[in-house]
Amino acid sequence: MSSGNELTHFDQEGKAVMVDVSDKAETTRTATAKGRVLVQPETMQLIQQGGFKKGDVLAIARLAGIMGAKKTPDLIPLCHPLMLTSVKVDFTLDPENNAIEVIGTCKLAGQTGVEMEALTAVSIAALTIYDMCKAVDKGIQITDIRLVKKTGGKSGTYEAE
Amino acid sequence: MSSGNELTHFDQEGKAVMVDVSDKAETTRTATAKGRVLVQPETMQLIQQGGFKKGDVLAIARLAGIMGAKKTPDLIPLCHPLMLTSVKVDFTLDPENNAIEVIGTCKLAGQTGVEMEALTAVSIAALTIYDMCKAVDKGIQITDIRLVKKTGGKSGTYEAE
Amino acid sequence: MSSGNELTHFDQEGKAVMVDVSDKAETTRTATAKGRVLVQPETMQLIQQGGFKKGDVLAIARLAGIMGAKKTPDLIPLCHPLMLTSVKVDFTLDPENNAIEVIGTCKLAGQTGVEMEALTAVSIAALTIYDMCKAVDKGIQITDIRLVKKTGGKSGTYEAE
Amino acid sequence: MSSGNELTHFDQEGKAVMVDVSDKAETTRTATAKGRVLVQPETMQLIQQGGFKKGDVLAIARLAGIMGAKKTPDLIPLCHPLMLTSVKVDFTLDPENNAIEVIGTCKLAGQTGVEMEALTAVSIAALTIYDMCKAVDKGIQITDIRLVKKTGGKSGTYEAE
Amino acid sequence: MSSGNELTHFDQEGKAVMVDVSDKAETTRTATAKGRVLVQPETMQLIQQGGFKKGDVLAIARLAGIMGAKKTPDLIPLCHPLMLTSVKVDFTLDPENNAIEVIGTCKLAGQTGVEMEALTAVSIAALTIYDMCKAVDKGIQITDIRLVKKTGGKSGTYEAE
Amino acid sequence: MSSGNELTHFDQEGKAVMVDVSDKAETTRTATAKGRVLVQPETMQLIQQGGFKKGDVLAIARLAGIMGAKKTPDLIPLCHPLMLTSVKVDFTLDPENNAIEVIGTCKLAGQTGVEMEALTAVSIAALTIYDMCKAVDKGIQITDIRLVKKTGGKSGTYEAE
Repeated sequence: MSSGNELTHFDQEGKAVMVDVSDKAETTRTATAKGRVLVQPETMQLIQQGGFKKGDVLAIARLAGIMGAKKTPDLIPLCHPLMLTSVKVDFTLDPENNAIEVIGTCKLAGQTGVEMEALTAVSIAALTIYDMCKAVDKGIQITDIRLVKKTGGKSGTYEAE
Repeated sequence: MSSGNELTHFDQEGKAVMVDVSDKAETTRTATAKGRVLVQPETMQLIQQGGFKKGDVLAIARLAGIMGAKKTPDLIPLCHPLMLTSVKVDFTLDPENNAIEVIGTCKLAGQTGVEMEALTAVSIAALTIYDMCKAVDKGIQITDIRLVKKTGGKSGTYEAE
Repeated sequence: MSSGNELTHFDQEGKAVMVDVSDKAETTRTATAKGRVLVQPETMQLIQQGGFKKGDVLAIARLAGIMGAKKTPDLIPLCHPLMLTSVKVDFTLDPENNAIEVIGTCKLAGQTGVEMEALTAVSIAALTIYDMCKAVDKGIQITDIRLVKKTGGKSGTYEAE
Repeated sequence: MSSGNELTHFDQEGKAVMVDVSDKAETTRTATAKGRVLVQPETMQLIQQGGFKKGDVLAIARLAGIMGAKKTPDLIPLCHPLMLTSVKVDFTLDPENNAIEVIGTCKLAGQTGVEMEALTAVSIAALTIYDMCKAVDKGIQITDIRLVKKTGGKSGTYEAE
Repeated sequence: MSSGNELTHFDQEGKAVMVDVSDKAETTRTATAKGRVLVQPETMQLIQQGGFKKGDVLAIARLAGIMGAKKTPDLIPLCHPLMLTSVKVDFTLDPENNAIEVIGTCKLAGQTGVEMEALTAVSIAALTIYDMCKAVDKGIQITDIRLVKKTGGKSGTYEAE
Repeated sequence: MSSGNELTHFDQEGKAVMVDVSDKAETTRTATAKGRVLVQPETMQLIQQGGFKKGDVLAIARLAGIMGAKKTPDLIPLCHPLMLTSVKVDFTLDPENNAIEVIGTCKLAGQTGVEMEALTAVSIAALTIYDMCKAVDKGIQITDIRLVKKTGGKSGTYEAE
């Protein structure tokens, strides 16, 4: 599909298309994306308390990320509707850098990859952390959203890290 | 509302709530968010061609960002439904750094701010750029998503830059 | 807003924007749109039976049209989210011409008109009639979708017929 | 399924059903629909400028049509959720008649046809053209929305033109 | 999957996941759910009139239930997106008990069951009856929403009644 | 509006309408609804563990209920789009009866009441509890969904209990 340096979401005349995947083989495909949310040290502490005493920012962000993955074809104009068979969103706290790492993994057996679903899961989870902490922290940044791994499809396994 | 270091999206017992804004004054509120999409030099060139010869990545990302802003209450669990009166999404190309800067601005007269709408517009526009370029560039990163300006509401104007 | 022959959904540089209506006055606005669905004589008879014996095509199309009006900002990229205070969809059967006329009326007190909501109501109601009859009639046409009346806003009342 | 002159979206007692397609064969199915948007000569000129200097009405309408096709099961009450593998929306300008022809084509391998998806794509694209031009042209009409071709499924190929 | 007394929507560490069904066999699955709407005797009469003279509450509730089933993955956070091949919603009037029984049945060939889709269809249909009657009856109750039958999948047929 | 024993969602001819509320006064309106989820004793124990060691069923159901309230106009055909200013979903465990009570409260300043929003919040939260527990408990029932309190609007305060 990606024959050389062409943007595949355009046809020869430069018109946007939802790429025709009708003839692509149905294979098991997975994608894992990551991103980071940078917060103030005090915010980091509030988030870390989530698990035991106070409301749990990360549990809510996880759910938002999972639901966000399902909305990908509604959000990204040229994405195909897909039937995800698995979505996982997880977090690693990196208190030294006052960062929350967001990890999203999607899976299905289908004709097109699930990178955008994994990236959307990460983005929506990160935005939700932002929303829940913004009253105490106006300088939050969402950063380093990227694909880290992808399996299945004609191009096979890709690993960024 | 943000009394000290409390996360306002939780009540005293730590339960998630959609914050009650019924008694907040209706004021004109704006928010501007930014983010950056980092691509390969070749991708940068393909995007720059958008305006004249080839399909226009940025025009599509702009539209996705505007539509994404409208979906914010669907995506971010504790966001209020809002009636945005203006949404703008724009881009600045920074070819030296192979970066596309995404700028999103939202506006309304209402009881709660529009930061999340601006940040969502930027995120969805950035994800759309990613989607449209991913066939030729597997290492794209979305980064530095942040609020840069906010006006209106009790807390008044905030400017990050 | 419509200063001369400019398309208002673009800014000076030709970039799509959701027009800023923040400073427009809030007035009561209504819009009525119409359209026609052209069917075979046999289909017309089946639809006419709807009220008494068989399933009611028009009742379902009416509901789809009302629900469709509410989805307008999701469907039409640069439409503002609106809080419609009234939506009506009705039908006039014109058996001589084997036509079902669809009439949609929307209303609200707001800063922008509801033409698109009325037109969307008509379009979705017409598509639903199509869907429900297509098994017996492959040549259905949806035609003459247009605004027939509009009140409120700076430009005042407009009447097409 | 369409045994004689029955509306298949109702059961024997006239109750609306989403037709059971569980036992239908999965075949490759395509559908192409067309429609026309009739505008003033001045509007036609503004649209024709889209490709080079001013904002591009048709590019936005194309995107709205593609996204609209994906929303078909949300809009048309008794349509099945489908996984479209291809959506294309295109336009032919007919300046002599001041008409924009909208052409939508959908495709999938599935148990039910994609006519409604193609017709919805055309309708939403046409409504978007309307929305973007309505500030300069109050008399726009959307007309002649119809199925022109359909392949796959038990009933095989159908061609209207 | 349901190994003993574990909640399958959480992983070992208690984090919410959309259960990975990638390796489950695709079988035909059906589910039937029921619920009851309890109304005042006068409301019961108004509903019973629906079929002939007055607007038809049940026809509208049926449609809302069918459309609601399609929205299940949007509503229930950890539900998989599914391609339902059949949705039926029906009603039995029980005037002696002033109850409307709602029955919803969903079907597909897939890797996961459709209980939630059937239960959602019943719930949304019941809520719609409530909405349409609430102006004349403030004490309506929705009750006894439950799964009555389920076929397909590893666990086979389940019948509650 | 509710003049005697009329269903207000139909006009004089029995056609469904979204009731015209354009001329109703904007007042502060609240509504509280309740419902019960009946489970097995073992399920009750698993849910009670939620707060400390295992994944938290109720936190997820709370979020689903809040998000569900926002979707009410999408789900209930004749509901108006509303801008809720507050949504709360809470739970009371009643281990003696193996019941989880769900309580939903919505609020806004508007022209129409928020009963359906509160009832939808309760229904979706209850369905989510069902979904999360169904692997270990096939006989769950959702019951007693009802309005318990309503304030604001022309009809004033209503209290059921």
